[in-house]
Amino acid sequence: MKKTIIGIMGPGSGASERDRQNAFTLGRLIAERGWVLLTGGRNEGVMDAANKGAKSAGGLTVGILPSTHDDDTSDFVDISVITGMGSARNNINVLSSAVIIACGIGAGTASEIALALKAQKHVVLLTEDQAAIEFFRGLDKDRVAKVGDPYEAVRYASMILQSL
Amino acid sequence: MKKTIIGIMGPGSGASERDRQNAFTLGRLIAERGWVLLTGGRNEGVMDAANKGAKSAGGLTVGILPSTHDDDTSDFVDISVITGMGSARNNINVLSSAVIIACGIGAGTASEIALALKAQKHVVLLTEDQAAIEFFRGLDKDRVAKVGDPYEAVRYASMILQSL
Amino acid sequence: MKKTIIGIMGPGSGASERDRQNAFTLGRLIAERGWVLLTGGRNEGVMDAANKGAKSAGGLTVGILPSTHDDDTSDFVDISVITGMGSARNNINVLSSAVIIACGIGAGTASEIALALKAQKHVVLLTEDQAAIEFFRGLDKDRVAKVGDPYEAVRYASMILQSL
Amino acid sequence: MKKTIIGIMGPGSGASERDRQNAFTLGRLIAERGWVLLTGGRNEGVMDAANKGAKSAGGLTVGILPSTHDDDTSDFVDISVITGMGSARNNINVLSSAVIIACGIGAGTASEIALALKAQKHVVLLTEDQAAIEFFRGLDKDRVAKVGDPYEAVRYASMILQSL
Repeated sequence: MKKTIIGIMGPGSGASERDRQNAFTLGRLIAERGWVLLTGGRNEGVMDAANKGAKSAGGLTVGILPSTHDDDTSDFVDISVITGMGSARNNINVLSSAVIIACGIGAGTASEIALALKAQKHVVLLTEDQAAIEFFRGLDKDRVAKVGDPYEAVRYASMILQSL
Repeated sequence: MKKTIIGIMGPGSGASERDRQNAFTLGRLIAERGWVLLTGGRNEGVMDAANKGAKSAGGLTVGILPSTHDDDTSDFVDISVITGMGSARNNINVLSSAVIIACGIGAGTASEIALALKAQKHVVLLTEDQAAIEFFRGLDKDRVAKVGDPYEAVRYASMILQSL
Repeated sequence: MKKTIIGIMGPGSGASERDRQNAFTLGRLIAERGWVLLTGGRNEGVMDAANKGAKSAGGLTVGILPSTHDDDTSDFVDISVITGMGSARNNINVLSSAVIIACGIGAGTASEIALALKAQKHVVLLTEDQAAIEFFRGLDKDRVAKVGDPYEAVRYASMILQSL
Repeated sequence: MKKTIIGIMGPGSGASERDRQNAFTLGRLIAERGWVLLTGGRNEGVMDAANKGAKSAGGLTVGILPSTHDDDTSDFVDISVITGMGSARNNINVLSSAVIIACGIGAGTASEIALALKAQKHVVLLTEDQAAIEFFRGLDKDRVAKVGDPYEAVRYASMILQSL
């Protein structure tokens, strides 16, 4: 009965308006596919927008929170996993996701992409940041794909799921 | 939209037949109340039985796994959170649960009860182990309650939820 | 060149005067044997006293801190390992110690004893708490020993080290 | 009595001969300054070489191991901290180090640089990988410095320590 979990990683307070719009669309598309959305769970930036998008389509949302309490959890998270372990929880985010979609780039997101590659997970990059694309494609070109919009990201994730 | 999560903790391979029966009933009752069930997620003992009980009543189940993969996840877990951090994940189990019900006692369960008390969570003990009851009641008698069966455990959990 | 590490676990702010005196003596004896002392590292109770004792005999001290910074580290810790993961760090304490000596009992200490037994480590109990002794001896009587004073604790730890 | 800890992060089995030579020299220079060396602790690549270098100069070495046991610990690690939490331990590496020196680049190293920046730590890059330099300097140019050799890396670390 295990459900398919797709992780969306991206900046919190540093997210751009475009990152947030992409995250909302990604969340909605993931929910429409019947997948569970997993994020870092906080009430900011890409995390919050992705959860809002998923709930707009009736999806199920899981947040893996860094803090020891629920005060900064997104209102659009259904299942709040409280780790109390700060950024070390980023490794749980990637281990628990079948595919990771990075929506925008920040230091936390970069750590999640790198941890995902270390764990031999596939990563889809939805960003205009050329340095990030070049760097992560250089680390593992077989597992890192660059996409142009949320629709392509979800099609790509679907293709990877079928290959697992 | 955050759902109420109740954690059931108990032995894996060391669970007694009675522990497993109690766990199944607890899982069913939790699902019937509309709560989400959280366990350590493995396909053994109290974890497996509780998840099976919750699914028998159409509930939603979350497993917080110690390993880096899904090979030992219970078939009755919907949301598999892969921590890759062994028994350190026990702290996540208790931080993420509004109330913790210990169903039987083992070393892992004892660590979860103790971590729950450290985090000032309420713990319901469903066990005949008098030494465990005396010890944990001695540690924090205001937060540790002894109950006689799964029905009493769930009534007690409900009462605590209303007081939070 | 790996050094032998002995862990002393015990209450922080809840430590009794006797716990602190025992912890100081334990720390001193551990240093005199040439072992490294490992504790939870905070500037309170058993942790602080044990580190002070070890430094009084010129020992080397390692603290495994729960917080993300050094503000609450004991002044007598040489090597401060900052985990940022709260009580989940208790599992690191026990995995890193060849033998665990519990000096007094609190909720955190109880979690460490239980996690140690889960990891099949030997635990020496230096406490008058009969409920704790009965409970943990009941969990695993082959790996839990009750001692009467710090000298006996260290002799016992030495005997276990020789058997490993 | 807290000692200054400098972290060297770098590839394990994927380290180049040059990475290993640089790591050995870095380890030696760190020991000569009287600093404690912290690494991921395994018996491979940059970790092993850095520890060997530090011990060649009589330094003190701390390894933060990902596994639950000591089997893959470098022979040149004095203090073996066993986390049992896989790559999630990378966050402990950076939180515990006053300055992080990345010697070569791999997925694990990239996660450590990113986690360091997330924790507002300074990072010194000793690598020829231009994509890595561009990417991480782009993430946080105030906290990321590129150096040409181990001597410059240690001078730079020293300068940062004085500013903290």
